[in-house]
Amino acid sequence: MPELRKDPIIGRWVIIAAERGKKPSDFVSEAKPPSGAFCSLCPGNESKTPPEVYALRPDGSPPNTPGWRLRVVKNKFPALIAEERLEATSSGVFDWMSGVGDHEVIIETPRHNTKLSDLSVGEVADIIWAYRERIRALQKDHRFHFVMVFKNHGAAAGASLEHSHSQLVALPIVPKRVFEEMEGARAYYNDHQQCIVCDIVKQEIAAEVRIIEQRDDVVAVAPFASRFPFETWIIPQGHSSSFEEGENYDSLAHVLLGVLRRLDRVLENPPYNFVIHTSPFGEANNLYYHWHLEIIPRLTKVAGFEWGTGFYINPTPPEAAAMYLRDVSPSSGG
Amino acid sequence: MPELRKDPIIGRWVIIAAERGKKPSDFVSEAKPPSGAFCSLCPGNESKTPPEVYALRPDGSPPNTPGWRLRVVKNKFPALIAEERLEATSSGVFDWMSGVGDHEVIIETPRHNTKLSDLSVGEVADIIWAYRERIRALQKDHRFHFVMVFKNHGAAAGASLEHSHSQLVALPIVPKRVFEEMEGARAYYNDHQQCIVCDIVKQEIAAEVRIIEQRDDVVAVAPFASRFPFETWIIPQGHSSSFEEGENYDSLAHVLLGVLRRLDRVLENPPYNFVIHTSPFGEANNLYYHWHLEIIPRLTKVAGFEWGTGFYINPTPPEAAAMYLRDVSPSSGG
Repeated sequence: MPELRKDPIIGRWVIIAAERGKKPSDFVSEAKPPSGAFCSLCPGNESKTPPEVYALRPDGSPPNTPGWRLRVVKNKFPALIAEERLEATSSGVFDWMSGVGDHEVIIETPRHNTKLSDLSVGEVADIIWAYRERIRALQKDHRFHFVMVFKNHGAAAGASLEHSHSQLVALPIVPKRVFEEMEGARAYYNDHQQCIVCDIVKQEIAAEVRIIEQRDDVVAVAPFASRFPFETWIIPQGHSSSFEEGENYDSLAHVLLGVLRRLDRVLENPPYNFVIHTSPFGEANNLYYHWHLEIIPRLTKVAGFEWGTGFYINPTPPEAAAMYLRDVSPSSGG
Repeated sequence: MPELRKDPIIGRWVIIAAERGKKPSDFVSEAKPPSGAFCSLCPGNESKTPPEVYALRPDGSPPNTPGWRLRVVKNKFPALIAEERLEATSSGVFDWMSGVGDHEVIIETPRHNTKLSDLSVGEVADIIWAYRERIRALQKDHRFHFVMVFKNHGAAAGASLEHSHSQLVALPIVPKRVFEEMEGARAYYNDHQQCIVCDIVKQEIAAEVRIIEQRDDVVAVAPFASRFPFETWIIPQGHSSSFEEGENYDSLAHVLLGVLRRLDRVLENPPYNFVIHTSPFGEANNLYYHWHLEIIPRLTKVAGFEWGTGFYINPTPPEAAAMYLRDVSPSSGG
């Protein structure tokens, strides 16, 4: 059973995923799966994944058979599991709880050798819609307080499967990072009666130097205090506290695809992570927090200085990164 | 000039090291320097580094010539620089300051093909003493509030030079991570009139399951809420708030060397980072914070989930890691 353990000094939670039970030899021999090996996410292999919980099947094919355009399944090796009772325990200075949660895989396309940035705007909008639908479904389980949606692209970014996919993890606690963002945003609101991200967007649009792409109600910027070279945030322009309250993701799909294609062009298909930052379920509608999507190309190594300080050394100013990304075409490479 | 920028939402600082000025092509072509290439840290090449600020020269040789056993020089490509005036500025929602600080490289041995875990206890004690001496020297500069000592071993852990070395960075602010630890430790002290790390050590020694090595006044444990497989903390047993107040590092050298050799044996010379966590200069002597050294083997990839939540999925329970590490010999491989 996975276990959630709390660091007694700074209160950071860690998932001890003992099922994954990695022995020393697993790390020593860890290698990339060979290209062309069996892929459990490909059409025809539906029985090799846990049953699907959501799918787009334009041909009306039955669940867990080929014919899908997008498919969501439970993770075969989940970090947290839905079936356990939520129990908190402590012993002396240590606190822990049972690893209750959920972990799903969004298979973005049936085509094995296709990456997210190769898809059409409509296909990307479908993926984003699937995120929304799954968050809304998981929200009904009152044990969960937050759903984290993320994508790892490329082995250097932590992807262990080649077939293009993203993931979501439902959590029984509000994670530390999300909590800090909520606190920061709330403090700013109390001081200014304004959402801090609304103010950032206003200032960025006026300054222009860190804007990468802008379309209708969505903007992509290289954040002022970028931790990483070519870090990019995609932000809705009107105030919006929760991602899953959206009704139309066309502009978001357009800008996300545009930014990924710009990154591919400037950095030759870099590994990257993206993460959706949104409000916890308990305060989904609020005036102070503004959801957004953060893209982190994995170009530098996080090293001792970063682990020790919690801050980052970024060798590429965001103004330069934005300029490089603006200067290339976001249209499809095909 | 490097710049320190503050994230307007969560207050995290970032160093924008524009001197390092990395262009997209620098990331695309980034490769390991070939083994056997010219090494500026080797004896005979002293003129290729900035002048030394500390050295051990048993033969009485003059500075910046061969004959040294250990040498500390300024970093040629510093993240922060000592020569700048400390100036803070803001514009709208953004705050930043000039990148004042210092960045030094501790060349741990004259021998190019020797890693830290190959050295003798006496040589490791000399390195630890050099950290202490440099921190105490930098402490005299009243612009600095903290010195972070760290080591990156192996390319996967962020080391860009092959020759065995560690680094220190003097900072004009107390980093977020350090601030959080101080706050957590202070809160625990206010509740219990005890240092939290003293209590952790007591509980770990009684439980035995996460202890890796214990010698005189120093203990090595796999922390209860380990973020990473085989994460190890080395902790002095008596209460001690500041690393640089130490007068004798023999047990520390012994245990550090023992743990590194155990890791080498169990994980076949893994890449790793280590970091010294100690009190900021402004509160160097206190009853609530306890300095220690954290070792992080780099076996898993930090991915989207970790970036988004600030928490970690660890597939190896610390109890299992401690058992593997206890079961091998810490003696020299030679």
